[in-house]
Amino acid sequence: MAETDLEDRDVEAPVSGERVQGEGEQFDEENRLKPEFVEQVREALYDEIEDSVYDLVEPLHPADIADLFELLDRRERTDLAAAITDLMSSEVVAELNDYVREDMVESLPHGAVADIVDQLDTDDAVQLIEDLDHADQQAILAEVEPEDRAAIENALAYPEESAGRLMQRELVAVPESMTVGDLIDYLRAEDQLTTEFWEVFVVDHRFHPVGTCQLSWVLRTPRDVALTDVMKRDQTLIPTDMDQEEVALRFQKYALISAAVVDESGRLVGQLTVDDIVHIISEEAGEDALLMSGAGEGDINEPLRDAYSARVRWLVANLGTAVVASAIIAFFGGAIEQLVALAVLMPIVASIGGNAGTQTMAVTVRAIAMNQLTKSNTKRLVIRELKVALMNGVTVAVLIGLATSAIFDWQLGAVIALAMVINIIVSGMAGVLVPVAFERMDQDPAVASSVFVTMITDSMGFFAFLGLAVASGLVSL
Amino acid sequence: MAETDLEDRDVEAPVSGERVQGEGEQFDEENRLKPEFVEQVREALYDEIEDSVYDLVEPLHPADIADLFELLDRRERTDLAAAITDLMSSEVVAELNDYVREDMVESLPHGAVADIVDQLDTDDAVQLIEDLDHADQQAILAEVEPEDRAAIENALAYPEESAGRLMQRELVAVPESMTVGDLIDYLRAEDQLTTEFWEVFVVDHRFHPVGTCQLSWVLRTPRDVALTDVMKRDQTLIPTDMDQEEVALRFQKYALISAAVVDESGRLVGQLTVDDIVHIISEEAGEDALLMSGAGEGDINEPLRDAYSARVRWLVANLGTAVVASAIIAFFGGAIEQLVALAVLMPIVASIGGNAGTQTMAVTVRAIAMNQLTKSNTKRLVIRELKVALMNGVTVAVLIGLATSAIFDWQLGAVIALAMVINIIVSGMAGVLVPVAFERMDQDPAVASSVFVTMITDSMGFFAFLGLAVASGLVSL
Repeated sequence: MAETDLEDRDVEAPVSGERVQGEGEQFDEENRLKPEFVEQVREALYDEIEDSVYDLVEPLHPADIADLFELLDRRERTDLAAAITDLMSSEVVAELNDYVREDMVESLPHGAVADIVDQLDTDDAVQLIEDLDHADQQAILAEVEPEDRAAIENALAYPEESAGRLMQRELVAVPESMTVGDLIDYLRAEDQLTTEFWEVFVVDHRFHPVGTCQLSWVLRTPRDVALTDVMKRDQTLIPTDMDQEEVALRFQKYALISAAVVDESGRLVGQLTVDDIVHIISEEAGEDALLMSGAGEGDINEPLRDAYSARVRWLVANLGTAVVASAIIAFFGGAIEQLVALAVLMPIVASIGGNAGTQTMAVTVRAIAMNQLTKSNTKRLVIRELKVALMNGVTVAVLIGLATSAIFDWQLGAVIALAMVINIIVSGMAGVLVPVAFERMDQDPAVASSVFVTMITDSMGFFAFLGLAVASGLVSL
Repeated sequence: MAETDLEDRDVEAPVSGERVQGEGEQFDEENRLKPEFVEQVREALYDEIEDSVYDLVEPLHPADIADLFELLDRRERTDLAAAITDLMSSEVVAELNDYVREDMVESLPHGAVADIVDQLDTDDAVQLIEDLDHADQQAILAEVEPEDRAAIENALAYPEESAGRLMQRELVAVPESMTVGDLIDYLRAEDQLTTEFWEVFVVDHRFHPVGTCQLSWVLRTPRDVALTDVMKRDQTLIPTDMDQEEVALRFQKYALISAAVVDESGRLVGQLTVDDIVHIISEEAGEDALLMSGAGEGDINEPLRDAYSARVRWLVANLGTAVVASAIIAFFGGAIEQLVALAVLMPIVASIGGNAGTQTMAVTVRAIAMNQLTKSNTKRLVIRELKVALMNGVTVAVLIGLATSAIFDWQLGAVIALAMVINIIVSGMAGVLVPVAFERMDQDPAVASSVFVTMITDSMGFFAFLGLAVASGLVSL
């Protein structure tokens, strides 16, 4: 029976080789949709040949359809959505970039959004409407099935980026008294149950989790064995108010596939599965580079005005720090008039110091984000960075010192070499201590560290170099 | 029976509440080991009270024991390992930071390492010895059980960071002819099978994967149904030579829990599970910040000499770019002698331009890393960044222009304002085009972009400002 059935399937379903996700002529070697393919879709859209658009998109995995939307321009996106309505599955919507999704949702009538919401899991539905303004949310929820609406409103009651927002309410929880056989019979009988679960939660009479059964253990065990003998008692319980960054770190650290979410009283209210968390893990790990550069969210689909306001804020802050550095130069204006070579060389000292500071800052911010840096090893890191800075400083100082001596004179060479060592060491220390200080003050070290580190490295660079030039009697104030 | 058994367990095993991972008095609110706790361990180690060390560490989850090792100093680590030998489970070793692990392995006798290797899964065992030099590897493998040795040598034959290195050979694969009942009976009967699997791979007579069965589906289905009716035919097959970064992106994109690894001929040779991939996802996402800053691996446990050589390389490269910028200043030396205010103001133009360039570069590098940026939307991104740069440039230019006019004179204000707009636009374009160019040349855009972007922003900043000062007749060459 299995055989014949397999035959039937092979007729309409191509053999596995052709159903391998992310391969075939639409993809380049890095699993991205080929520009040629995107062009084909574009042309079909312009010529308004909806059938050929559909035929092009139909073979794609939902995640690839989502990518296609992101690669198209704004107006093309709505045309595509219209051309492939019945391919716009919940997976596609869930995989869409937040900004693209929000943009499309705003362009759709409330009824249409409500229809999509009805077929989504709670967590995806929440993601779909959480960024809309309250009025739109209400208008859409009004047209959603009552029980779905209740679940969604319940989720929206939790703070943004909290476990309560992220969790799925659909899960499998069974009493401690069950045997493996009872569980299997229960799973076969209950057709209302979700099929998206990787572990079964065993709960006591208060619905508090007491253990977790990995499905593979259940399947490897005879029917008459008690679940309490198969389940793992060590659990990671996620409180509903835990921040998603913290959740992501727990999943990484304890290599979790799914985890129980509990309310204040310890009752099991939902579950988180790793496939929802991987996006957050990469988001949280990747955002530090953007935050340190002062680019905010830094998503290429972010609306122009958001990108502008996120970035200009830091440019203006940086303007302030640059003015401080300039004030130091102005103080030495007389010295520069006597020896213009100082103006020529001073940016080198500041620039290398800035680079050295950024290096140390990046290392420190990463260590903090990964929970690797605590009071227990901060001193060790400071000493380590001091050593690295000393080694780097001496190396660079020798190079610039010799070059300057050759081009100008040995005294100026000595001044810039010494200034360079001082600035690289100061920068290295600033790179560790500034982020650590922010972290101790419960501020995100990735956000504001750069501005302060840059100010320190620039100012110190100019001050050390010009100051030493005066102190050495090379020039006078 | 289940009940009574539960009673028994509760005697030796505390109730679930006390077995929640990462909670209790050893942890701070962010799930990090408290400095006070680490101190306790330190003191117990100094006083050489091995029992109290053991009692302190025993309640910890393997991942937390690994964290403890990382928080201790080098010498303390070996003392701890000696004090808690039988707590040094394979999980602890697998969770250790690469550098800490390598360091400890090198300090252990080959026999001891071999004993650990024997109890590790292939993938963890490979991780343990892959960084050792060939001679040590051979010496250790010589003392490992033959079949384990074969599996490890087989894995080491694959390139570093490839799927072949990462995969577990332990998996569950069954023929297409099986029913759900057959599968369950097989899983119960075969006691040699791994218990660490989340999906069952269905293979044809050539051992090529034809489908995947999620365990929850198997458990929800009656015994007599054919596996071919339960399995998913859409699969993500991972070739053994696929790079780990690519693997991580596939797991994210297709929300995979596990995936089949196949050799050139398409035969199933291993599996990858998401819990091994989450570390790579966060590693790959986090490394760009470090690479862009020129901090290399940037791990706080990296040996001093590695950190030095990784960073000094970029500082020297940066020295080169700074010298180019200085040459431009030198060319305008005469102008600066006439008006020292130019020397005071020029670093502002360069510094803000540098910041703007870094912002755009961070956004572009991230988009490339996430496979969001292809030929299809590069033009759109360039135009977008041009607009942002124009908005940012005008905003900053107005501020600095007015301030300069107030402090110096309106003509100098006009010069610096115009120079600022020009430099921010040039920087914005460099921030997009430099990483894109590297990516087109199959170079990692995160690695070398900064140096080029910095050179462009600094040189352009000085040239635009000083050049306009001359052009405007404010000063003469």
